[in-house]
Amino acid sequence: MLKYRVLSRSCHIFHPKSLSNNTLKSESTQELLQTLGFIRRSQAGLFQWLPLGLRSLNKLTGIIRNRMDNDCGAVEVSLSAVSSKSLWQTTGRWTNSELFKFKDSKGKQYCLTATCEEDITDLMKNYVTSYKDMPITVYQITRKYRDEIRPRGGLLRGREFLMKDAYSFASTKEEAFASFQELDETYNKIFKDLKIPFVSAWADSGDIGGEFSKEFHLIHESGEDTLMSCKDCGDISTLDMSQSFPEKDGQYLGDVDCKYALTKDHSTLICFYYPKNRQLNWNLALNVMDKDIDLALRDKPNDLVLEAYQNDNEDIMFSKILRVMDCRLNSKSNFPDFPLKEYLKNNFGQIDDVSIVDAQADEICGKCENGNLQSFKSIEVGHIFLLGNKYSKPLNVKFVDKENKNDTFVHMGCYGIGVSRLTGSVAELGRDANGFRWPAIIAPYKVSICTGPSNEENLQRIKDIRSKLLDNSSIDVQNDMLDQFNEKLGIGARIKLSHAMGIPLCVIVGPKNWPNVEIEVRGIRWGKRDQWKTEFEKKTQEWNWKCTENENGIEKHVVPIEHLAEVVDILLRDM
Amino acid sequence: MLKYRVLSRSCHIFHPKSLSNNTLKSESTQELLQTLGFIRRSQAGLFQWLPLGLRSLNKLTGIIRNRMDNDCGAVEVSLSAVSSKSLWQTTGRWTNSELFKFKDSKGKQYCLTATCEEDITDLMKNYVTSYKDMPITVYQITRKYRDEIRPRGGLLRGREFLMKDAYSFASTKEEAFASFQELDETYNKIFKDLKIPFVSAWADSGDIGGEFSKEFHLIHESGEDTLMSCKDCGDISTLDMSQSFPEKDGQYLGDVDCKYALTKDHSTLICFYYPKNRQLNWNLALNVMDKDIDLALRDKPNDLVLEAYQNDNEDIMFSKILRVMDCRLNSKSNFPDFPLKEYLKNNFGQIDDVSIVDAQADEICGKCENGNLQSFKSIEVGHIFLLGNKYSKPLNVKFVDKENKNDTFVHMGCYGIGVSRLTGSVAELGRDANGFRWPAIIAPYKVSICTGPSNEENLQRIKDIRSKLLDNSSIDVQNDMLDQFNEKLGIGARIKLSHAMGIPLCVIVGPKNWPNVEIEVRGIRWGKRDQWKTEFEKKTQEWNWKCTENENGIEKHVVPIEHLAEVVDILLRDM
Repeated sequence: MLKYRVLSRSCHIFHPKSLSNNTLKSESTQELLQTLGFIRRSQAGLFQWLPLGLRSLNKLTGIIRNRMDNDCGAVEVSLSAVSSKSLWQTTGRWTNSELFKFKDSKGKQYCLTATCEEDITDLMKNYVTSYKDMPITVYQITRKYRDEIRPRGGLLRGREFLMKDAYSFASTKEEAFASFQELDETYNKIFKDLKIPFVSAWADSGDIGGEFSKEFHLIHESGEDTLMSCKDCGDISTLDMSQSFPEKDGQYLGDVDCKYALTKDHSTLICFYYPKNRQLNWNLALNVMDKDIDLALRDKPNDLVLEAYQNDNEDIMFSKILRVMDCRLNSKSNFPDFPLKEYLKNNFGQIDDVSIVDAQADEICGKCENGNLQSFKSIEVGHIFLLGNKYSKPLNVKFVDKENKNDTFVHMGCYGIGVSRLTGSVAELGRDANGFRWPAIIAPYKVSICTGPSNEENLQRIKDIRSKLLDNSSIDVQNDMLDQFNEKLGIGARIKLSHAMGIPLCVIVGPKNWPNVEIEVRGIRWGKRDQWKTEFEKKTQEWNWKCTENENGIEKHVVPIEHLAEVVDILLRDM
Repeated sequence: MLKYRVLSRSCHIFHPKSLSNNTLKSESTQELLQTLGFIRRSQAGLFQWLPLGLRSLNKLTGIIRNRMDNDCGAVEVSLSAVSSKSLWQTTGRWTNSELFKFKDSKGKQYCLTATCEEDITDLMKNYVTSYKDMPITVYQITRKYRDEIRPRGGLLRGREFLMKDAYSFASTKEEAFASFQELDETYNKIFKDLKIPFVSAWADSGDIGGEFSKEFHLIHESGEDTLMSCKDCGDISTLDMSQSFPEKDGQYLGDVDCKYALTKDHSTLICFYYPKNRQLNWNLALNVMDKDIDLALRDKPNDLVLEAYQNDNEDIMFSKILRVMDCRLNSKSNFPDFPLKEYLKNNFGQIDDVSIVDAQADEICGKCENGNLQSFKSIEVGHIFLLGNKYSKPLNVKFVDKENKNDTFVHMGCYGIGVSRLTGSVAELGRDANGFRWPAIIAPYKVSICTGPSNEENLQRIKDIRSKLLDNSSIDVQNDMLDQFNEKLGIGARIKLSHAMGIPLCVIVGPKNWPNVEIEVRGIRWGKRDQWKTEFEKKTQEWNWKCTENENGIEKHVVPIEHLAEVVDILLRDM
């Protein structure tokens, strides 16, 4: 009995004791992660990591760490999760309503870090005192916190999450951009390691700020984000950043919407006109105005913007007005009434031929002005920013340059991957009606072994398989192999559980075929990888390796145990 | 230039650019950890881990994880650092003033976990529903939080710290005790892996509570704790738990102190009498009274205890009084006046021949009543508890037993190691006037390589050494080898820095000896380990391996480069 215990590991108590088809089909990915024992929700937006989930999370962490250390020479640190009010006040981010804030017994105020720009900058200013100390990129993989009002999507938008955040420090703009590019490449390698489809897209910098930024997305219809890609030039941008033009300008004849804004000095009223059936895109609107818009008024209704304009300008008669017309509009479109009765024609300007609404599929790409756009839903999993001196300036981080002067602010970049979010997203990506399908490299186990009844004979067979795999494959038995060993389940249910957990290969051992074993393939070959076929054709005769498909369309391999290890390695290579 | 950069790693910017003997001598261990770039304090009790410190911390984490996984079959999980008020209220621990507490934007109350008994019990009750699911031990290595009013000792008593906390769940007392013993053995192995002197001591259970507990300590004069050990029976206990007897009873003739207490029902006044020059030991006092003491009055002055006694008993004349006399007292000792004027002799009891004060060195051990005690200072680094149902009862965790009944509470144990505290303690343990001396297994690097000027010749020599070590030793070049490469420092200063960082072996490469290399030994051979000597005697001739001591008493080895790897392995084995 004890021997079985050890083989099956005590972690089996976290796995379901039975599993209905209905559960597998109807539960959301984030519910199923709990049912199968990957994680368990403790409170809204907060999760406990159970053995299966922690294995995948740790494997992903390992991949990221390996790439960060070896591909961009980043140096790992680990900052406190507790930061101080004073630091966040200096950069103006203390007012962020999503920060968890608290006091100690002496009344001093703290927050739990949501990101670490403040802390890392404050730390690094002690070390990057000369241009010789740069460029340097530091990173950490630690928990972050965000008081999401409506946590949702399980691991996708939690209130505590594991994040890899990196920060680059450079003495020149060029050096900073080189670091940004290096991180961009490293991110591409990390996502390629996972062998899953992903894209990177130019993006808006949002609350983090800075000069420009790029997001990394997994394509999936359940995603909250929309990306636009050009069929011709291949440019991919977030909806925020995507400019599009209609096939022909000025074809829209319906109702027109207008949104008011003011320039930063409040001297000019800006009226954005656009088709009522479209969404104003603030990012495009900002670009038209060279960012000269008072963003504090962005979400205010038109009458309040107008009131501010009237209050701040002594004689409205002489104040400036600028009309910005979306290129889809036609003079015959149905414009709303203009609110001001009196104004001077001379003070009246107009910008035409610009696109200020969210792009739509099939419109023309604003980048190449040639190809048609397509849109798809996606899940954001990484974001990299060229920050400039957004943080080094308020925190006063200067360095001694080549001329021995000390008056330039350090150039920074910051680079995030939501590690727990990525784990949840990959689960979503490979999800089907039978459960999960993990990439081999982050599957909780690469191989599971399912036997019939737990008798001495089957136990011996498992031992044989273990030793074959240990000696002749890349499988690390402890780390990559699970014995499916719930004594209450029959062999069919054990296989079903292995497939549901998303383990790429399920090795099935029974008296019928022995010493042949069966391998059922559950992993996905994204991007039609099929290196295995070439190997199969070479070796099918020599090894007596057969491949069939069962009645449920599942790919099956049968191979004598002496070649099991080689076949396992070959099959995993594509997954 | 780039080549040097890559070799020396960018983490060199965190290391000091110069290092005076005075700094090395006068700074406290916790200051020196900062000066040398292991950690940096961000706020009181909060630290940022820099590359050197993080390496040691991660190596220690790896050792602990390995032992937990393989020696006691524990299963790793990872719980949220955020727990809920309701859970901590259920166990009565919400009132703990050392909890960091906060609210979310909806006003819901949370705390940062200081330990995880509440959360793990609440989680596991979903999985340990039958006796068949137990015994099981789960553990995690995560950050914990404590609002220390006076954080001190750097990593030793911080407000955020890394902790390995394990929890065992069992269906019977025997099973629970077996888990406790298994963890006790595992802890012994973990500390033995570090090759440092440690002891375990029976201890008081304190705030965590439960049936009994054992602490693990590193012996060091800077420690805050006092341990008593018996020269005869070998028993080691914390001062709290140590009972001692004088060589002869009743020899004390000086002033006597008295401390009042009440039984839980307040019916009896207890007067503890003990020598004024000794400290009352509450744990011993409690044991004398079979724990029947109202602990709420423990820290109240005598007159308030007396007042409570008088208020709660209608006729003091008939109420009970118990005198507990420490065995050191003599009837001729100078007793204080008895405060009550009237009482019945019949209601008056006395306990003699007990020891109720803190033990002192040279007294007789209370366990074997034979050997003499000795006392030493120590740093507590681990604590294991047999909890019983202290948490399973309030959180109502029952299970189905063999008789198919569901009315027994799960038997628990909990087991902590302060991982960051242990790192700081080991730094303290090996500290001398030249810096740190790490055990090889958790040294940030096992070997450093110091050369003279950074020219092509020396660079080539480093490369040769790297490849020799990589091919023929246990040294993982990336993980275990540091090139000391601060261009501003000469070879002497580089060696000094290597020694200060506590790297066990410093390989010195220069044109003078080449192709011989010198190895300076910095690591400590705790417990007089000297396996290396046997090997040395065997191989000194064959390998042309010489051992000397330099003018500062530092052990030096000279060996041709082709035997460097073997000698490095041999020397590290003892450290």
